[in-house]
Amino acid sequence: MRKRIPTPRATSRRDFLKSSAVGLAGAALAPGNLAGKAVPANAGAEDHPIVLRTQGSFMVGGTVITAPNGDTFHGDHAYVQYQIPTDARALPLVLWHGGGQFSKTWESTPDGRDGYQNIFLRRGFATYTLDQPRRGRAGRGTEGQTISAGVPNESNLWGIFRLGRWPDFFPSVQFPGVYDPAALDQYFRQQTPDTGPAFDVAHRHILIDAAAALFDKIGPAILITHSASGRLGWPTAIKSRNVKAIICYETGSFVFPEGEVPAPAPPHENIPVPVADFMNLTTIPIQIVFGDNIPTEPTTPANLDQWRTAIVQARLFVDTVNRHGGNAQLLHLPDVTTSRLRTSFWPGRTTTSPGTSRR
Amino acid sequence: MRKRIPTPRATSRRDFLKSSAVGLAGAALAPGNLAGKAVPANAGAEDHPIVLRTQGSFMVGGTVITAPNGDTFHGDHAYVQYQIPTDARALPLVLWHGGGQFSKTWESTPDGRDGYQNIFLRRGFATYTLDQPRRGRAGRGTEGQTISAGVPNESNLWGIFRLGRWPDFFPSVQFPGVYDPAALDQYFRQQTPDTGPAFDVAHRHILIDAAAALFDKIGPAILITHSASGRLGWPTAIKSRNVKAIICYETGSFVFPEGEVPAPAPPHENIPVPVADFMNLTTIPIQIVFGDNIPTEPTTPANLDQWRTAIVQARLFVDTVNRHGGNAQLLHLPDVTTSRLRTSFWPGRTTTSPGTSRR
Repeated sequence: MRKRIPTPRATSRRDFLKSSAVGLAGAALAPGNLAGKAVPANAGAEDHPIVLRTQGSFMVGGTVITAPNGDTFHGDHAYVQYQIPTDARALPLVLWHGGGQFSKTWESTPDGRDGYQNIFLRRGFATYTLDQPRRGRAGRGTEGQTISAGVPNESNLWGIFRLGRWPDFFPSVQFPGVYDPAALDQYFRQQTPDTGPAFDVAHRHILIDAAAALFDKIGPAILITHSASGRLGWPTAIKSRNVKAIICYETGSFVFPEGEVPAPAPPHENIPVPVADFMNLTTIPIQIVFGDNIPTEPTTPANLDQWRTAIVQARLFVDTVNRHGGNAQLLHLPDVTTSRLRTSFWPGRTTTSPGTSRR
Repeated sequence: MRKRIPTPRATSRRDFLKSSAVGLAGAALAPGNLAGKAVPANAGAEDHPIVLRTQGSFMVGGTVITAPNGDTFHGDHAYVQYQIPTDARALPLVLWHGGGQFSKTWESTPDGRDGYQNIFLRRGFATYTLDQPRRGRAGRGTEGQTISAGVPNESNLWGIFRLGRWPDFFPSVQFPGVYDPAALDQYFRQQTPDTGPAFDVAHRHILIDAAAALFDKIGPAILITHSASGRLGWPTAIKSRNVKAIICYETGSFVFPEGEVPAPAPPHENIPVPVADFMNLTTIPIQIVFGDNIPTEPTTPANLDQWRTAIVQARLFVDTVNRHGGNAQLLHLPDVTTSRLRTSFWPGRTTTSPGTSRR
C-alpha cells in the first residue's frame, strides 16, 4: 500500500486553518513545502501513486421541464466528478472553477505537471470537481443561448489572469507559457463558453442551489473557490452547513450583514444578507488568497486594476467576519513567499532571470 | 501494491481480439466474467482499488484564429482526460462518446456503479476519455452556435437508446431507471449540447483530425467508439496507424472501398474511401457490438428501426473487411448472453421478472 505522507491531520476547525491553510496555497506552488514543514520531495510526484477506492460522476441540482403529455427536459444541473482515495482524510475538497473556465482549472497544469486535484489526492484528500450549471459537462441548460463565433480576444485573458500587460509577461511571472509556447496554447484552450444566460441573479441562484445540494449530498467538506465562483461560495456556505471551511482564490465580491455593507469598487459587488445568515460564516475558517503582480495604486488596464480593488474588498470582508467573532484570513502570497519556495517551483531553474518575454 | 487480476494479456493483435473483445463487452455487463473465464468476483468492485501512476488532461487538435495585431482565439480542439495505472497494460483505451453525450458515457453509471472507465482501470488499462470538439469541456468552438431553450423531448432519447417505446420500458431492459427514478433523472442529464455547428463535413474533419492527433500524441492504443463516433473511428484509424484495434458500439455508418459501396439505409451513411486507405482497416482487429431489443423486421418508431438497419450495415462492413483479408467481427450480445451472465448483472435480482414498467 502507499506510504503515508507525514503531515499532521486537522483535528478541529481552528486547527485545520492553522495547519493546512497556508499549505493549501503553498502546496500548489511548492510540492516540497506543506504548512511550513519539510515533507518528502516526491510528495507530489508520480512515484507516489494516486490510490483510489473509487471514482465517478453525477449531476446535482437543476430542474425539470415537464410537458402536458409527460415528456421531460432535464437541465441546469451541475456536473461533479469525484475521486475518493483509500483511507481518505475526513473532509473532502470541493473544487469550483471561475469565470470562463471549467473543472480543468484544478487538473494538470498547461505544461502537464500535477494541479490541485492530483496534489491533494496524493495527500489523501477526496476531491469533488464541479462544472457549474451551463458550463462544460453541465451544458444542458433550460434557457438557450447564442454563442458568438470566435473573435481574437485572448489578450483580455492575459490581463485578467495577470500574465502581464499583453503581449508582455510580468518579469517575475512563473507561468510556464513564458518558456513553452505549447503551454500557452493549452492555457488558452482552458476556456469554454456558457451555454445559457449566465451570472444574472437567476443563474446565481441556480449555481448556489446546485452547490448547496452537492454539500447536502456528500456531507461535510471544504469548499475551494476561484475568482467568479468566490462570491457564490459565501451564500453556498450560508445555505449548507456542510461547508466546513472556505479557501477562496482571488475574488472581489462578498456578502456583508445588512446595515454594514460598504460601497463596493466596481466591478465587484457587496451583497447584503441578514445578520443571522452572515453569522454562519463566522463558524467556519475562511482563507482568501491573492497572488503576485497586483498593483498597489490605481492602474490600467481595468482588468488588472480590479485585483487591486479586490484586495481592498477582501480586507473589508475579513475584518467584518472577524469583528463578528469569526476566523477569516487574507493571505497575500508575496507577503509569505520565501526565496526557497520560489526556486523550488521550477526545479533546476530560478525565476528571477527570465526577464520580460514576448511570445 | 495491488493484486494482479489473473487474466491473460494480449500477445498479438489477433490474440487481443480473441482474448479481450468479448471481454470488453462482457465485462461491462458482468464483472464476474472476462473472456469466458472466471475471475474474482471483486474484480470490478471498490475493494480492488484504482492505483494510478498519474492522471491529467489536455486539449488536442483544433485551430487558432489570429488577428492582425497578434491577438488570438484558440478553439475547435478536443479535450482529453487520461488516467494511467501503475504497471499499465501495453495498449491504452481511447474512449469516444456518441451523439448528444460526452465523456460521462464511460464514467459511473446513472445508479452509481462502475462504468467502463473504472472497470478497465481496475484491470490495468490506461484510459483516455474524450470530449469531442464543440462538446462538453471542448466547448470553445470557432464558429458560434444558437442553442435552443429546453423543450421536453426526452421521449426521443428513450427511443434512440432503446429503453423501450416511451413511456414504457422493454420487458427485459436492464437499465436501472426501471427500478430507480433517480437513475432515470441522472441518465437524462448525461446529455449536453453542441456549442458549434456539428456533424457537417467540416466538423467531421475537425473531429477526425483531433482524434488522429490524439493517437499521434499518445502512441499505439485501442479506440472504443459509441454510436455517432463510430463512423468517425474508421477514418481516424486510416489517418493514424497508432489505432491498433477498434471496438465500436452500435453504429450504422461505415467506410467502404471505392467501387464497393453498398446503398446505405438512411439515416446511415456509407462513405467511399480509396482501396489503399480501406486496407489499413484490414490490419487491425475490429469488433462491432450491438445490444438487445433490436427489431428484426421493419418497425416504428424510426429511431428504433434504425438499429435494425444498423446491424444490416455492420454485416456488410464486416464482410467487406474480411473479404479483403481483415479481422472484423460483429458481436450481437443476445447471441452470446448466457442466463448466468444476465443474472449476475443484477446481484440478488433476476432480470426476467420485472415486466413492463412505467415511470
